[in-house]
Amino acid sequence: SFANLRIHPHGLVLVDLQSYNDDMKGREEVDQLLNKVEERMKELFHGNIKRVKRLPAILRGGVIDRYWPTADGRLVEYDIDEVVYDEDSPFQNIKILHSKQFGNILILSGDVNLAESDLAYTQAIMGSGKEDYTGKEVLILGGGDGGILYEIVKLKPKMVTMVASNIDQMVIDGCKKHMRKTCGDVLDNLKGECYQVLIEDCIPVLKRYAKEGRMFDYVINDLTAVPISTSPEEDSTWEFLRLILDLSMKVLKEDGKYFTQGNCINLTDALNLYEEQLSRLYCPVEFSKETVCVPSYMELWVFYTIWKKQTDI
Amino acid sequence: SFANLRIHPHGLVLVDLQSYNDDMKGREEVDQLLNKVEERMKELFHGNIKRVKRLPAILRGGVIDRYWPTADGRLVEYDIDEVVYDEDSPFQNIKILHSKQFGNILILSGDVNLAESDLAYTQAIMGSGKEDYTGKEVLILGGGDGGILYEIVKLKPKMVTMVASNIDQMVIDGCKKHMRKTCGDVLDNLKGECYQVLIEDCIPVLKRYAKEGRMFDYVINDLTAVPISTSPEEDSTWEFLRLILDLSMKVLKEDGKYFTQGNCINLTDALNLYEEQLSRLYCPVEFSKETVCVPSYMELWVFYTIWKKQTDI
Repeated sequence: SFANLRIHPHGLVLVDLQSYNDDMKGREEVDQLLNKVEERMKELFHGNIKRVKRLPAILRGGVIDRYWPTADGRLVEYDIDEVVYDEDSPFQNIKILHSKQFGNILILSGDVNLAESDLAYTQAIMGSGKEDYTGKEVLILGGGDGGILYEIVKLKPKMVTMVASNIDQMVIDGCKKHMRKTCGDVLDNLKGECYQVLIEDCIPVLKRYAKEGRMFDYVINDLTAVPISTSPEEDSTWEFLRLILDLSMKVLKEDGKYFTQGNCINLTDALNLYEEQLSRLYCPVEFSKETVCVPSYMELWVFYTIWKKQTDI
Repeated sequence: SFANLRIHPHGLVLVDLQSYNDDMKGREEVDQLLNKVEERMKELFHGNIKRVKRLPAILRGGVIDRYWPTADGRLVEYDIDEVVYDEDSPFQNIKILHSKQFGNILILSGDVNLAESDLAYTQAIMGSGKEDYTGKEVLILGGGDGGILYEIVKLKPKMVTMVASNIDQMVIDGCKKHMRKTCGDVLDNLKGECYQVLIEDCIPVLKRYAKEGRMFDYVINDLTAVPISTSPEEDSTWEFLRLILDLSMKVLKEDGKYFTQGNCINLTDALNLYEEQLSRLYCPVEFSKETVCVPSYMELWVFYTIWKKQTDI
């Protein structure tokens, strides 16, 4: 063990205790030691201490990493107890970690994507139960975890087409094995009675559909969250995002709806910039947004509904 | 600034950087410094590093404390940006802190109690929208934040009686001023058209009602979460809990329902012990439980519905 005491001039005393041990017994010993330190400090200062705060121990360097910061950069500890899947694809790191309370959690390059507890996410990006998918044509962009596909297929659509690029291939592989509560058996085959999964980049597929005049009642964009960086160098990111939006509007029926996730409600700059993009599409659109609590995110998440502005005749 | 480097024999390298500064600029400098350290380390190890993890900075000693561990002991950082209320009563410390995303949060002796975002809590402890409160007699035990009272009064009950002890007086004072999204105007007066608030210990009140034969359709116990400690020395805590349950059953109509919170779903020992108590009441009861995501808790929470077992005639 290694202790570190620092006294700052205005009366702040910081005590750090670093201890190397593998077991819970070691943690208890550390706790007892800190109890003694706290007692002794109170004695030394004759009880004249305004505030004492002890933080739970941070576990570093173990096989299991419990710290997955939120999109707005806060430190949060998860109740991870098992590494279920951990692979690097050429595009990203893909982890599936088991949380006692949330079930398996999909983490892509360090970002919490979806847990088995997060039906609230899937429901939100499908329009929060207010839509009737029966007999409808649906296009899903991304959605490699299979959650959206699984939930929509239950609702007897005419046809659901999910376009996942090869970036998603390993995500699909991991999820179909370890996120069954989220995706059921829907990823076991790339084709079902009322759905198909295309492993292709969505841009050429969208262009093809636009050319063919193939139209959808719903387009659900589950590719990524709204980019956090709002720096001007990121122009290409926003251009890509607008391109997808434009192409999606081209394959969306006049009374169709486009659903997508935004980001953490605290990232107002990024969300504002996203909303600004919506006024720069080839056709005028309107939008509404909803804030939803997705259990494993530990932050409130914004979802968008976008539709073509109806022009009065 | 003060840096601390520790190399463990099996290849774990821990770098801690402690820096004293008040502003965001300081934090950016620290980030840049850590970028350089990381780069240099990669050079030194010729890129032969298996895993690098950098945690967000922990802010210590400031006026605003952002760390409020979960009931299951995990470290979580909140997006607190203002101390709204901070008072010590003879019984506990009462804080109301402002979170950017959750609104004002009531924290009692370090435990996150309820935030303005947490209607899900209030709905869960009222039976998740499945009950018809119209014309009903309701008894609330505790509930000093006023959330339950405010929501039930909207539903046109016959009479709601809330019994809050003087332990809750300062909670009521703080909440009626700073948690208006939760309690509306319902705590401004201790009496309304269909409700009354009694500032009394609930045990004598329950005994009086039992003696008078006063019966309720619903009893909602919002006093505390299920005790976490499961040590045998805590017998008195469980006895107190059983006493309240027994008295509540005495004032509950035959077809009435008793609602209460449990605790974090991960605290299985505590929850099992609670369920064990339910088999030790003066009358046979049955129960169901539900797990709910309360936004500001950052953990899933268990709620109980308890009712008198109907004996077949």
